[in-house]
Amino acid sequence: MGAQWGNNIKLTIFGESHGKGIGIVIDGIKPGVKLDLDYIKKQMRRRAPGRNSFSTSRKETDEVEILSGIVDTMTTGAPICGFIKNEDKKSKDYSILKEVMRPGHSDYPATIKYSGKNDVRGGGHFSGRLTAPLVFAGSIARQILQEKGIEIAGHIFSIGNIIADNTEPNLKKLREICEKEFPVADETTEKSMKNLIEKVRMEQNSVGGVIECLAFGVPAGIGDPFFNSLESTISHIMFSIPAVKGIEFGKGFEFSNMLGSDANDEYYFNGTEIKTYTNNNGGILGGISNGMPLDMKVVIKPTPSIGKKQRTVNIKQQQNCELEIKGRHDPCIVPRAVVVVESVLALAILDQLGGCND
Amino acid sequence: MGAQWGNNIKLTIFGESHGKGIGIVIDGIKPGVKLDLDYIKKQMRRRAPGRNSFSTSRKETDEVEILSGIVDTMTTGAPICGFIKNEDKKSKDYSILKEVMRPGHSDYPATIKYSGKNDVRGGGHFSGRLTAPLVFAGSIARQILQEKGIEIAGHIFSIGNIIADNTEPNLKKLREICEKEFPVADETTEKSMKNLIEKVRMEQNSVGGVIECLAFGVPAGIGDPFFNSLESTISHIMFSIPAVKGIEFGKGFEFSNMLGSDANDEYYFNGTEIKTYTNNNGGILGGISNGMPLDMKVVIKPTPSIGKKQRTVNIKQQQNCELEIKGRHDPCIVPRAVVVVESVLALAILDQLGGCND
Amino acid sequence: MGAQWGNNIKLTIFGESHGKGIGIVIDGIKPGVKLDLDYIKKQMRRRAPGRNSFSTSRKETDEVEILSGIVDTMTTGAPICGFIKNEDKKSKDYSILKEVMRPGHSDYPATIKYSGKNDVRGGGHFSGRLTAPLVFAGSIARQILQEKGIEIAGHIFSIGNIIADNTEPNLKKLREICEKEFPVADETTEKSMKNLIEKVRMEQNSVGGVIECLAFGVPAGIGDPFFNSLESTISHIMFSIPAVKGIEFGKGFEFSNMLGSDANDEYYFNGTEIKTYTNNNGGILGGISNGMPLDMKVVIKPTPSIGKKQRTVNIKQQQNCELEIKGRHDPCIVPRAVVVVESVLALAILDQLGGCND
Amino acid sequence: MGAQWGNNIKLTIFGESHGKGIGIVIDGIKPGVKLDLDYIKKQMRRRAPGRNSFSTSRKETDEVEILSGIVDTMTTGAPICGFIKNEDKKSKDYSILKEVMRPGHSDYPATIKYSGKNDVRGGGHFSGRLTAPLVFAGSIARQILQEKGIEIAGHIFSIGNIIADNTEPNLKKLREICEKEFPVADETTEKSMKNLIEKVRMEQNSVGGVIECLAFGVPAGIGDPFFNSLESTISHIMFSIPAVKGIEFGKGFEFSNMLGSDANDEYYFNGTEIKTYTNNNGGILGGISNGMPLDMKVVIKPTPSIGKKQRTVNIKQQQNCELEIKGRHDPCIVPRAVVVVESVLALAILDQLGGCND
Repeated sequence: MGAQWGNNIKLTIFGESHGKGIGIVIDGIKPGVKLDLDYIKKQMRRRAPGRNSFSTSRKETDEVEILSGIVDTMTTGAPICGFIKNEDKKSKDYSILKEVMRPGHSDYPATIKYSGKNDVRGGGHFSGRLTAPLVFAGSIARQILQEKGIEIAGHIFSIGNIIADNTEPNLKKLREICEKEFPVADETTEKSMKNLIEKVRMEQNSVGGVIECLAFGVPAGIGDPFFNSLESTISHIMFSIPAVKGIEFGKGFEFSNMLGSDANDEYYFNGTEIKTYTNNNGGILGGISNGMPLDMKVVIKPTPSIGKKQRTVNIKQQQNCELEIKGRHDPCIVPRAVVVVESVLALAILDQLGGCND
Repeated sequence: MGAQWGNNIKLTIFGESHGKGIGIVIDGIKPGVKLDLDYIKKQMRRRAPGRNSFSTSRKETDEVEILSGIVDTMTTGAPICGFIKNEDKKSKDYSILKEVMRPGHSDYPATIKYSGKNDVRGGGHFSGRLTAPLVFAGSIARQILQEKGIEIAGHIFSIGNIIADNTEPNLKKLREICEKEFPVADETTEKSMKNLIEKVRMEQNSVGGVIECLAFGVPAGIGDPFFNSLESTISHIMFSIPAVKGIEFGKGFEFSNMLGSDANDEYYFNGTEIKTYTNNNGGILGGISNGMPLDMKVVIKPTPSIGKKQRTVNIKQQQNCELEIKGRHDPCIVPRAVVVVESVLALAILDQLGGCND
Repeated sequence: MGAQWGNNIKLTIFGESHGKGIGIVIDGIKPGVKLDLDYIKKQMRRRAPGRNSFSTSRKETDEVEILSGIVDTMTTGAPICGFIKNEDKKSKDYSILKEVMRPGHSDYPATIKYSGKNDVRGGGHFSGRLTAPLVFAGSIARQILQEKGIEIAGHIFSIGNIIADNTEPNLKKLREICEKEFPVADETTEKSMKNLIEKVRMEQNSVGGVIECLAFGVPAGIGDPFFNSLESTISHIMFSIPAVKGIEFGKGFEFSNMLGSDANDEYYFNGTEIKTYTNNNGGILGGISNGMPLDMKVVIKPTPSIGKKQRTVNIKQQQNCELEIKGRHDPCIVPRAVVVVESVLALAILDQLGGCND
Repeated sequence: MGAQWGNNIKLTIFGESHGKGIGIVIDGIKPGVKLDLDYIKKQMRRRAPGRNSFSTSRKETDEVEILSGIVDTMTTGAPICGFIKNEDKKSKDYSILKEVMRPGHSDYPATIKYSGKNDVRGGGHFSGRLTAPLVFAGSIARQILQEKGIEIAGHIFSIGNIIADNTEPNLKKLREICEKEFPVADETTEKSMKNLIEKVRMEQNSVGGVIECLAFGVPAGIGDPFFNSLESTISHIMFSIPAVKGIEFGKGFEFSNMLGSDANDEYYFNGTEIKTYTNNNGGILGGISNGMPLDMKVVIKPTPSIGKKQRTVNIKQQQNCELEIKGRHDPCIVPRAVVVVESVLALAILDQLGGCND
């Protein structure tokens, strides 16, 4: 049971990688929101596979059929169901996946949990493909947040050991980066990163990276102490993205090596507003927003699907074996994951804002 | 609203740093658990303040009065309420805290959120003191987990730039470390860390660090895909601990610089069990435990309460000002926080195990 | 926000009466349940409209397309999505319903709540048609309960002032009644009830009734004290059925006129089991099952859609007016609602049983 | 697990009848509410035992100690914990209750559920005494509702076969009735009811009744369709009150014998507002308030604790036996339960209103 999330907006996801399709129900979206469906399509395309050489060759248009909750592009207040048909399903024999556990994938723990009854075709319900409905939901959330002056933008912070030159990410610059197929700021870094990805692809390997995501315009006072802190809410749903293995806010793990006098964000009054000179805390104190940009990073582990030969076990025969995974893989999912992280951050903020039903 | 947490066990915390006391209600603990109250006391002491020079001088015995749910040290199945009286409250005037916002603390966002009606004495409900009830609850959880062969142990991974020699943390060694007032493995590192803390204390400053925590004996198959992943559940409650600003599982942020072939934990069959050669994923794949030790780290930011002069604002007068925080502070809360992280991890695992009502 | 329900199984409904269709997602169904799809179809037919003269003439096959969670009739443990296309939609102009409020319907409060943005076509998301997905989910729940020896059966207790002869409803008899299109025990009553329905239909009126529903085989010890009592859980979801305006357990409102000595169900030991001589409490004490059959009744108000002229208001023009509702209505929905009540009771019990993941 | 309730305000109860005490934590109450503590005391007294001959002779002042969340009678926005010490505990031997199951009580199902580990002294956590914290929480809720013009008032509708003359209960009259120790409108009925109670008390028996409760001033548009309907929310928490075995809204079970043309509440426009001529639906349509007074009734079963000899079983010896319950009982708890029903209705409405954080 992990299909539901949210306090003020409620998400429910369903579907499998090689079943009929994947979908999401969103409850709690206020009535009367006029949606820009082209904006949603654009965001869906940012995540969709098959667009270039650093993505899997599986071709999915990821067109969302809206089954409920919207009449003539306007939300009605009723639950919104978006459904995405699976099109480019390979009709190959997946039965080997019932026996041979792919390292780094959910295969083994899922087999134990579901007593081998889980749908293993393409990872089934565990597939990264399930992030497509999150982008759909997030793209609705972003339009509602936009009305309130809240804008979200992410970028590739690093791939492998190549770190983007992202000193002082600001909204204007990030907006431009978002438009790019490969959302990284400077051209030099972009070229290096793409070369690295091409290199690991040729070696039938994969590589990880870090995504930074910011939310601008979040007013002070959003969030809660303790169990419902902004960090709790955001991290909870961020770790729903397969491959995310760490999250940090503001300076994050760098805080371990800082002194209080450097870490504290000192306040000043700029005539109309209270601001901080620095934003080490990433816009959150005591679990509540302080009016500065929300700033967070997640690490994406290298795609576990690699062509290289790997040692593993055959769970049916209860013996060791080797595995070479054939088929279509992403050598690096970081570029496609940026919009997923943005979408998920939007959903977390909208939830904390109470669905904006005001 | 952030006082409640959990799906299968339900926690509710309450209280303020300088009010009558602090407490917690735990619902969902199975009946018939014979509790070792001395074990609980011992864990409470590991967190309690005032024990040494690297802790605040506030003296609290943190004795828990059990108000319900336990008869003759045996759980009844009814909700357990534990209450801790505040004893060493300073009756000083806290009114200045209504006006002058302490950098790095929740003061400013809380003032906005609660329209200035929040209890500011000693941080009120936002105080780190609220972690004491979590240790109480966690110490009950740990006893139930122990019955099922699950043991949790943490240690100081780093303070400032001093990183503990923790190659291959194993249960036996970690058990010994836990017993120590300063839970770090080797004596040399301990001395360096203590020196550093003493140094920042003398400078009226503070320093952060990283805590690593492991859970041994978690069976494969615990957790859920997506919104209820083990990482989601654990991170949600970990970020309830004030000062935690980042979390990572297994290799965490190091994954960004790894190749799939190195990152994947290859399987082998050891005759009776399936294991992985490495544990880069920290015992979790696809949100579900794989039978290897759960391994996670959190970063603790430097205590924001420092004696040094800081720039800030007076929110009532709407102007800039300076602040020197007097009083009793922890130069480094990392040593006291280890047992909090352990407790919280225990609660997260117990929740995912369904409260062990089997 | 009212699309989600459940603690151990989680339901999410969506859809509108005259949109693309209606559906439900069910999370928490254990893997490996081999479903009898014909059984599901049979239950769906019991609720489906258009089958006879005491039902609306709208023709819907209510065929459920399973979008996820089931492979080859076997549950996988992933969320199950069932979707029912709307087929017999009247393409008439519904705009008048935006202005003229139908008495007894949700039109007016929904217009206020959703600022007039709600889908009004055929009642939109408020339509009784949304109970079809509940029957689908309930029919899965019933198959899981059946494995555990729990069987649910309902019957028409009364329509108008005609009360069925239901002294001592027992499982064997109720099973037979269930098979009938008009689920009432004796033929004489059936004839009278049908005559009454025909009479009100000719008068363009409608009539209410009471449904009794029992669950046999529920073991003692299911439920919780206080907020999660069996009665709380069951009533919560029963009141989700449009038209239900009251619920009672066991003797229910008759208890008001009873003495303790008559009301108390005295115990006896029958050699192997503890039973009660009477079942006034309907199988529930202190919110927990006592091993006797669960016994409850709900009252169904007369369908508010009637052909008779009614006084109402035009909300746009802010003035009084009259209304004659044209179109297809049920003169009495009680017969079709029996399977809905059974389904909902099954879902409530399955939820309290923890989804039967044992 | 049944200690928690609520979406927008969150309640957690704890405690046992003969333990240290009973309490409640309320999260989600907005900051800055100035509480009238005398009002709370007055409501607590309405429920408190030992005040007269139709109540148990157990003497409890039911004074609430506020442990958190309130500073100088003002809410802070942090969770409020109220605790009530048990004072008049009888130190008698309760061990017989571990073996001999009292008919009509939770003893037997609780023994099964908790494997005999539950606290049986005075019913333990299942005691009706646990409704005292609900009155405390409800009395806070009522003060917040009052600010918004919402007032709640209940009265005794019937005791045994004596039905109060409550035609057209209106707020002004109900306010007066509330002040009375025995909240029934006319003196004649009061006398008859009291005589009946005295009669059953002399016979060591008990008697049930019906409580009607209304909420005036609830604006139209509160509630949700389906799973979060007003009826769902209200009934869920009403069935948390021990002894409640049925609930109905508006005409409730009378609807079964009504025609649509009589049942429908026709609208009219009174110049400024939309009203209905009748209020058969008790102020709720489609799960949402329509601006008319909320009107509901619950049935209270006769107290199961009676002095008369009863047949039962000894669960340890696995054999039939007889039981005469000694001690202090309420011959009729209906008068004391009125304020409990009012409190619970207030909590349900406040929850649906989102805790009034606007």
